Amino acid sequence: MNRSKPLDLSARNAARARQAILTKPPGSLGQLEELACRFAAWQGRARPDVLRPAITVFAGDHGVTAEGVSAFPSAVTTEMVRNFANGGAAICVLARALDARLEVVDVGVAGEVSALPIVHAKVRAGSRNLAKETAMSAEETEAALEAGRAAARRAVDEGANLLIAGDMGIGNTTASAALICRLTGASPELVVGRGTGIDDIGLANKLRVVKTALARVAWENLSGQDTLAELGGLEIAAMAGFYLEGAHLGVPSLVDGFIASAAALCAKAIDPSLHEWLLASHRSAEAGHDHALAALQLQPLVDLGMRLGEGSGAAVCVPLLQMAVRLHNEMATFEEAGISGKSA
Amino acid sequence: MNRSKPLDLSARNAARARQAILTKPPGSLGQLEELACRFAAWQGRARPDVLRPAITVFAGDHGVTAEGVSAFPSAVTTEMVRNFANGGAAICVLARALDARLEVVDVGVAGEVSALPIVHAKVRAGSRNLAKETAMSAEETEAALEAGRAAARRAVDEGANLLIAGDMGIGNTTASAALICRLTGASPELVVGRGTGIDDIGLANKLRVVKTALARVAWENLSGQDTLAELGGLEIAAMAGFYLEGAHLGVPSLVDGFIASAAALCAKAIDPSLHEWLLASHRSAEAGHDHALAALQLQPLVDLGMRLGEGSGAAVCVPLLQMAVRLHNEMATFEEAGISGKSA
Repeated sequence: MNRSKPLDLSARNAARARQAILTKPPGSLGQLEELACRFAAWQGRARPDVLRPAITVFAGDHGVTAEGVSAFPSAVTTEMVRNFANGGAAICVLARALDARLEVVDVGVAGEVSALPIVHAKVRAGSRNLAKETAMSAEETEAALEAGRAAARRAVDEGANLLIAGDMGIGNTTASAALICRLTGASPELVVGRGTGIDDIGLANKLRVVKTALARVAWENLSGQDTLAELGGLEIAAMAGFYLEGAHLGVPSLVDGFIASAAALCAKAIDPSLHEWLLASHRSAEAGHDHALAALQLQPLVDLGMRLGEGSGAAVCVPLLQMAVRLHNEMATFEEAGISGKSA
Repeated sequence: MNRSKPLDLSARNAARARQAILTKPPGSLGQLEELACRFAAWQGRARPDVLRPAITVFAGDHGVTAEGVSAFPSAVTTEMVRNFANGGAAICVLARALDARLEVVDVGVAGEVSALPIVHAKVRAGSRNLAKETAMSAEETEAALEAGRAAARRAVDEGANLLIAGDMGIGNTTASAALICRLTGASPELVVGRGTGIDDIGLANKLRVVKTALARVAWENLSGQDTLAELGGLEIAAMAGFYLEGAHLGVPSLVDGFIASAAALCAKAIDPSLHEWLLASHRSAEAGHDHALAALQLQPLVDLGMRLGEGSGAAVCVPLLQMAVRLHNEMATFEEAGISGKSA
């Protein structure tokens, strides 16, 4: 099994020592200080390189949409993949703003996208209906994980030192809610939310679907990968593989919102040391995200009420990280600036 | 009196209508959606220009440091102004990262900075000791306000459409705490904090100083500008003038932390409509910032535990605003992308 690379704790300690001598009151940059030190530990250098983020959006459809769990029809997955290819989606705008590599990978879109300039790694035209049967076979799950791993390798090969996985898949908040319930122990009432915007009747139906799925499976002795196969989706499995391969290669991932956290939980169920290579970005407006973050031992950086997916919540946090690294590297020390110490 | 320019509510409404047809579930970009609409109202166009931020750091010393209220000696103000001029301070790094105009203005530094390549508008070599007497005369207060107004005009003349005021002044959390107490009614126990990092004995002393200052003045019939003169500082007055002139010229200001919020409260006491042109950035780790924000009717965008000043907390938020504007302008609409509507 691929295992996460160990952190470089001596680089982190050297970075912390540097933070203490920069021209500011100790601690006054708040979370930005420790963020820079985390990149030092990840990169193995006391003054980490500036961040070169890469965003990969994985798209897949979900058989569970047959249960009426989403406010949008399944066809929207295909239409949005076209929007990604044409540069009109939110994540396209954000990738341009960040000057970040953006790749779109079809791992399971039900519709026809073969002519689009994206990465074609379709495992199957959508997962099966998780309310009624295992969502993906063991082979399909492994193939989707591998599509994610391969995407992480491509991004790192092209120079990325920060990875972001995004999702597109109508129905995927249902699969994610089921996974989060199963992997954290939180009750469906606390985790199932409105996704793209279902009404109260839709929410009650979605809750029923998640409970049905959780009750369908005999959970004893199922591995993390088996759990992913039962309740997941193709793009969720690919995101999990992406995180795992990033950690194996020694490149951290900035985790987006609800779907991404479900994928990260699956990845952590496969490799328990994975979370050391994850950084939370935003707190999603989707109910239940907090439960996933807590189980991942992650604290979100911002809370902007976002719930779009695509990697958008992670992307908006990249400049905060970039500034943390640049402050760490570029600020003068007290000695360099000839500044008096504390009088206390 | 300068009055704030009226907001363009029709541009804001047109922007809201545009948000509703962009290729995302309604509301899924959270606060980024309304932020873009606020820039529409400020700029008077449904698709606002990208942001061209300008940062002005105002520096001044405080006579109240004679009371032992700060962990750092007063000389650090001068030393940090040199650090600004040399590009080694946090705000210098952030301005470079943002490609933002950065100007440093001496309005009241006690030490010798006349040879530095900054704007020289020194009103007086530090304010008087606010625990014992009026901190600035009426003429000094007016001159400091005007130094801030002139700085805002320069920034806007050079194309800025987003203003950030930063502060440098050892002792200025004491002046700011006194102003926030007076202008919000909050008790000193809730507002006085550790500033650059005083210990428990220092904190008790700082609390005594603020209470002494508040008890020194006969507050009846004092105007906002008089209050600023009694308890403020030269750089705080300049920041207030900067905000007022920005609002008059129709350019919003992104308010930094504790000191900036005290200055904004003073500005609002001078022009009650001012807050419509203010946007909060971060929630400072300094005790009492929440009281100032509440009185300004502002909600912070992020809470990163920062407490550095210099405009740094505002600067780190600029990319969030820039991305909000770019998403608003560049995302495809459902019609442009040929995407199906909600099925509900």
